[in-house]
Amino acid sequence: MGTIKILKDTIRLENLKQAVYEQNMELPQRGLVTYTWGNVSACDRELGVVVIKPSGVAYEKMKPDDMVVLDLEGSVIEGKLKPSSDTPTHIELYKAFPEIGGIVHTHSPWATSWAQAARSIPCYGTTHADYFYGPIPCVRNLTKEEIETGYEKHTGTSIIEAFEGKNPMFCPGCICANHGPFTWGKDAAEAVHNAVVLEEVAKMAARAESLNPNIKETPQAMQDKHFNRKHGPNAYYGQN
Amino acid sequence: MGTIKILKDTIRLENLKQAVYEQNMELPQRGLVTYTWGNVSACDRELGVVVIKPSGVAYEKMKPDDMVVLDLEGSVIEGKLKPSSDTPTHIELYKAFPEIGGIVHTHSPWATSWAQAARSIPCYGTTHADYFYGPIPCVRNLTKEEIETGYEKHTGTSIIEAFEGKNPMFCPGCICANHGPFTWGKDAAEAVHNAVVLEEVAKMAARAESLNPNIKETPQAMQDKHFNRKHGPNAYYGQN
Amino acid sequence: MGTIKILKDTIRLENLKQAVYEQNMELPQRGLVTYTWGNVSACDRELGVVVIKPSGVAYEKMKPDDMVVLDLEGSVIEGKLKPSSDTPTHIELYKAFPEIGGIVHTHSPWATSWAQAARSIPCYGTTHADYFYGPIPCVRNLTKEEIETGYEKHTGTSIIEAFEGKNPMFCPGCICANHGPFTWGKDAAEAVHNAVVLEEVAKMAARAESLNPNIKETPQAMQDKHFNRKHGPNAYYGQN
Amino acid sequence: MGTIKILKDTIRLENLKQAVYEQNMELPQRGLVTYTWGNVSACDRELGVVVIKPSGVAYEKMKPDDMVVLDLEGSVIEGKLKPSSDTPTHIELYKAFPEIGGIVHTHSPWATSWAQAARSIPCYGTTHADYFYGPIPCVRNLTKEEIETGYEKHTGTSIIEAFEGKNPMFCPGCICANHGPFTWGKDAAEAVHNAVVLEEVAKMAARAESLNPNIKETPQAMQDKHFNRKHGPNAYYGQN
Repeated sequence: MGTIKILKDTIRLENLKQAVYEQNMELPQRGLVTYTWGNVSACDRELGVVVIKPSGVAYEKMKPDDMVVLDLEGSVIEGKLKPSSDTPTHIELYKAFPEIGGIVHTHSPWATSWAQAARSIPCYGTTHADYFYGPIPCVRNLTKEEIETGYEKHTGTSIIEAFEGKNPMFCPGCICANHGPFTWGKDAAEAVHNAVVLEEVAKMAARAESLNPNIKETPQAMQDKHFNRKHGPNAYYGQN
Repeated sequence: MGTIKILKDTIRLENLKQAVYEQNMELPQRGLVTYTWGNVSACDRELGVVVIKPSGVAYEKMKPDDMVVLDLEGSVIEGKLKPSSDTPTHIELYKAFPEIGGIVHTHSPWATSWAQAARSIPCYGTTHADYFYGPIPCVRNLTKEEIETGYEKHTGTSIIEAFEGKNPMFCPGCICANHGPFTWGKDAAEAVHNAVVLEEVAKMAARAESLNPNIKETPQAMQDKHFNRKHGPNAYYGQN
Repeated sequence: MGTIKILKDTIRLENLKQAVYEQNMELPQRGLVTYTWGNVSACDRELGVVVIKPSGVAYEKMKPDDMVVLDLEGSVIEGKLKPSSDTPTHIELYKAFPEIGGIVHTHSPWATSWAQAARSIPCYGTTHADYFYGPIPCVRNLTKEEIETGYEKHTGTSIIEAFEGKNPMFCPGCICANHGPFTWGKDAAEAVHNAVVLEEVAKMAARAESLNPNIKETPQAMQDKHFNRKHGPNAYYGQN
Repeated sequence: MGTIKILKDTIRLENLKQAVYEQNMELPQRGLVTYTWGNVSACDRELGVVVIKPSGVAYEKMKPDDMVVLDLEGSVIEGKLKPSSDTPTHIELYKAFPEIGGIVHTHSPWATSWAQAARSIPCYGTTHADYFYGPIPCVRNLTKEEIETGYEKHTGTSIIEAFEGKNPMFCPGCICANHGPFTWGKDAAEAVHNAVVLEEVAKMAARAESLNPNIKETPQAMQDKHFNRKHGPNAYYGQN
């Protein structure tokens, strides 16, 4: 490998660590985490690395250089700190969903309340339909055996199971029963964006249900329209 | 047209763009929008223009000069950016309601929750009655055909349909089923003011209902009193 | 009246205006008001004056000198602006409750939600009992005639009616049906303090009810204990 | 006692007062207290002292030197101000739970709502399980006699009664019926941390229940896993 390639890759990795750091810092600023209850990672498939927040480090003290670099099997390549305890979940998702380049896990209060209620979030409006096509699934609880033999890894496989036959980019997130939300996107920034949206959608769905016990999901034509005007082949929302 | 008239109109348009910019910036500051989920427009009927926020531009990066200027048929006159995707809704409302000079659309969480519950907001108190005479209507869902043939334009016509025979200045806003609120006023500032009020009223109505399943609307005499002391011919609230 | 007495009274009145101004400014800072939906007054019985916020003036632009000075019959003595439209309510309360020196009216969201639900707030805990002895009463709606012949004055008389035979200092506030809260105290600062407490108590009572449909009021011995340790003859809370 | 020992102890006590001051200041910053409704203490068993916030002093005006120093029988050793009225509760807990070095009492709104509902908080998710093993108990109301003969002391004994046969470090907090939460930890900082967690857990449990009337507690294997990965002998969360 030539010197220039090595230099380029080094700069690219430093930029990725900076980006992952910044997106982790976005979590407390957006009100999604209390203390250290959240983590953001990014995956650069060309470099073959995953960059993730270290475990249990306070956001106020964290620096870009504290980010931990792993290979796609989950082995630490660079970094003095232990990676997030949820790392095996992130690794499973990167391996199963080749489209995604960023993952976020939080205990954001509204999404976590749905998780604790063990319910999927129905699509009650266009805010939801603009980002998530169909309900946001609640992923099943793990079995006792799964918990005892690689809890975090099996959290990943249970999510993958729930998305079998589905495009993870059409529904970039889920909530794990009795636990909390995971979201993803093409990069760390989009994954955080989707974490913010999920929290907002979870809040409004809860309130809407309490306002109308006979509430109905958004008509299908409206769901299609909103998702497609943002994400379909003829999307016309935003600037080009 | 004389030089002075041209100069005057140019200054007037610049001022309008500045005002529309400022009122758009008011939305995140008042907690009404997440990311880019909202837009404010203003209409100057003498100049024959509508000024509106560009589509999907982040509030932090937006400048007064990014505002898009259209004629009342919705054609762009000035501006490098695409106008808000909701522009056709604004245009319909300006054409149907000659009294109004400003429109706001948001996904503010409490109003949107009522929209998702597909319910009009009953008048439970004087906060509501001070601004909105009678219930704040929930506008019906569009048909599949309406959605597929000019979704945003038909959002406008469905609102107009709901206000048939009513003075839109007596109830300066509504909520569109499974979508969110639209408010208006004599100018952009008043439309934003009404968007803030609607959110507050939506919040208190939801909580009041959960406190009393047998809740009753505000007695009519009290509704009349409050609306009229602010808006009637003998209004006595505020300074003259 | 000697020169010194006049000087003293002038300074005293200026101080009162400053205090009323500061307490009005406390309302938005404590999250109790949106826009201009609130007012604070104070009464100096020796000077024979009531000082109150002007009507509909934005908090950001308000100055101490904008406070309006009235006599106890409600006639303006000093000030260029119109007094709050709720002034006749304040005047009635000052006349009926000689113990009080400050009054606050807001549309603070939780207290207003109880008002809209037309329910008194039961005493569910020590936070309530520390300040309000027994339930915080919901004052009845006015009759059509009362509304049409001096609405704001009759708001005052309806409150007085609800406190017949009670010590207003033992329950320094109430909520008016379909309207919102009024609180009071020995001066403007204490009235604002009680407005903040009422909002907090209203919030926790609402949430407690939704957690337990069979909820019970605080045992009487505990209510007595808490109210008396702060307000009884042998109070021992705080410094002397 | 040698001079060096005296100097060391003096510095140690000053540091403890500073720490208790800082943790008291953390309460309003974390949104746990309104006005003066909270207090933090710490116990240094080697020095034989408890340091606690003074009673009813505003947080804005409080200084480290205002902290009151008591012996473990509750007698004031140092300080010009009266200690918190809840001091006898703290003293009882320090005497009964030798593992703890810090205690916090607040009226934080969500935890207090559960207290007012007189209900223990079931473990609905991993956020709860990460800190509290099993339900967070609601401690019974005191009898009339207990209230009248040492209310604050008996608040302590009723908590101790509720933890009979349990390790207080496995469930570092409780809520007292119709009153509010108490939390503790190895020092003041950990006790405050647990107060923040309790409030968050109380909020999400309330919302989860309203989302699913048939809600179930977190499966036992998952509770065990989460509590142990943070607190068990083989804990692997965070850095070492």
